[in-house]
Amino acid sequence: MSATREIDALIDMMARLPGLGPRSARRAVLHMIRKRSLLMTPLADLMQKVAASARECLNCGNIGTGDICDICASEKRANGMICVVEDVADLWALERSGVFKGRYHVLGGTLSALDQIGPEQLRIPRLIDRVESEGVTEVILALNATVDGQTTAHYIADQLEDRVALTSLAQGVPIGGELDYLDDGTITAALNARRKV
Amino acid sequence: MSATREIDALIDMMARLPGLGPRSARRAVLHMIRKRSLLMTPLADLMQKVAASARECLNCGNIGTGDICDICASEKRANGMICVVEDVADLWALERSGVFKGRYHVLGGTLSALDQIGPEQLRIPRLIDRVESEGVTEVILALNATVDGQTTAHYIADQLEDRVALTSLAQGVPIGGELDYLDDGTITAALNARRKV
Repeated sequence: MSATREIDALIDMMARLPGLGPRSARRAVLHMIRKRSLLMTPLADLMQKVAASARECLNCGNIGTGDICDICASEKRANGMICVVEDVADLWALERSGVFKGRYHVLGGTLSALDQIGPEQLRIPRLIDRVESEGVTEVILALNATVDGQTTAHYIADQLEDRVALTSLAQGVPIGGELDYLDDGTITAALNARRKV
Repeated sequence: MSATREIDALIDMMARLPGLGPRSARRAVLHMIRKRSLLMTPLADLMQKVAASARECLNCGNIGTGDICDICASEKRANGMICVVEDVADLWALERSGVFKGRYHVLGGTLSALDQIGPEQLRIPRLIDRVESEGVTEVILALNATVDGQTTAHYIADQLEDRVALTSLAQGVPIGGELDYLDDGTITAALNARRKV
């Protein structure tokens, strides 16, 4: 490599971002160097700002800039409904759909005996506290349809079943999905949950 | 989107890097936020440093931190041979192979009548100056095997043919390449340039 030590170090560090490898990191760094004032400096400034201000909401685990995130602080969101997700990325995906107007609870992962991740590591006690203190009537378990996600959903359901209504996301054919390309599990789920036209 | 304004702005800006789209930018930003002190802050620092120090070498167009890049300044590199490339990324690719020990000249693109890019925009006059002032005996045209790249190579060859030996990279089957997967052009070139075993 013929670039300077700093540029090499920058490429190495960019290559540690998910979705980037050494080749795409080199391309990204060259692109940034070409657009130093328009892209690289503002991007670095923003990263410094976000690194200094971003933190997890003490209430729900969402990422925001204060101790309490915008969603928990908002008076426009409905109380009484909590949507439980594994990860902040899942929360963002749900927010993009714009349909859910209640509150969230971000677990920060799934239960895993192998990785020694128990309920304490996942904000599950905090969820149980919230159900009692916030007068929650429905908990939506929006966990991923993976083995770990469903194990975690079952565990939470066990803890909460006598206290609130528990729901989970519907399973079936995705919008625009072609049957020919769907896996057997999805087709089975869609058939079992078939409904009247 | 439920993230704060700054995080949204950071995602938008990351999505402008080549190879990243909105989805991968979100993943990268979440990953950085989780590793604020280990990744995000050092990355932002490095970007600031590189943005402040990186500049194009006045002699060859390579990217370095001074007015003259490390390769042009090095006394270990052979004088008398200049390898002409389109782009800094090509220079880096050649340097990774470690085979070439001469100097480079980065054009910064290819001739293009459509985009109004003529020889003046491409450091071609500077190349002709260098050939005369640096006592160059061989110019290797390592331009991409695209139409624009080859047009540019022909133009440079026309300008320099009486003054130095001109060579270009060999064309043929890439190492590890399977004939079945090669395009017709490559197979034709490899056949025409066949050599005795």
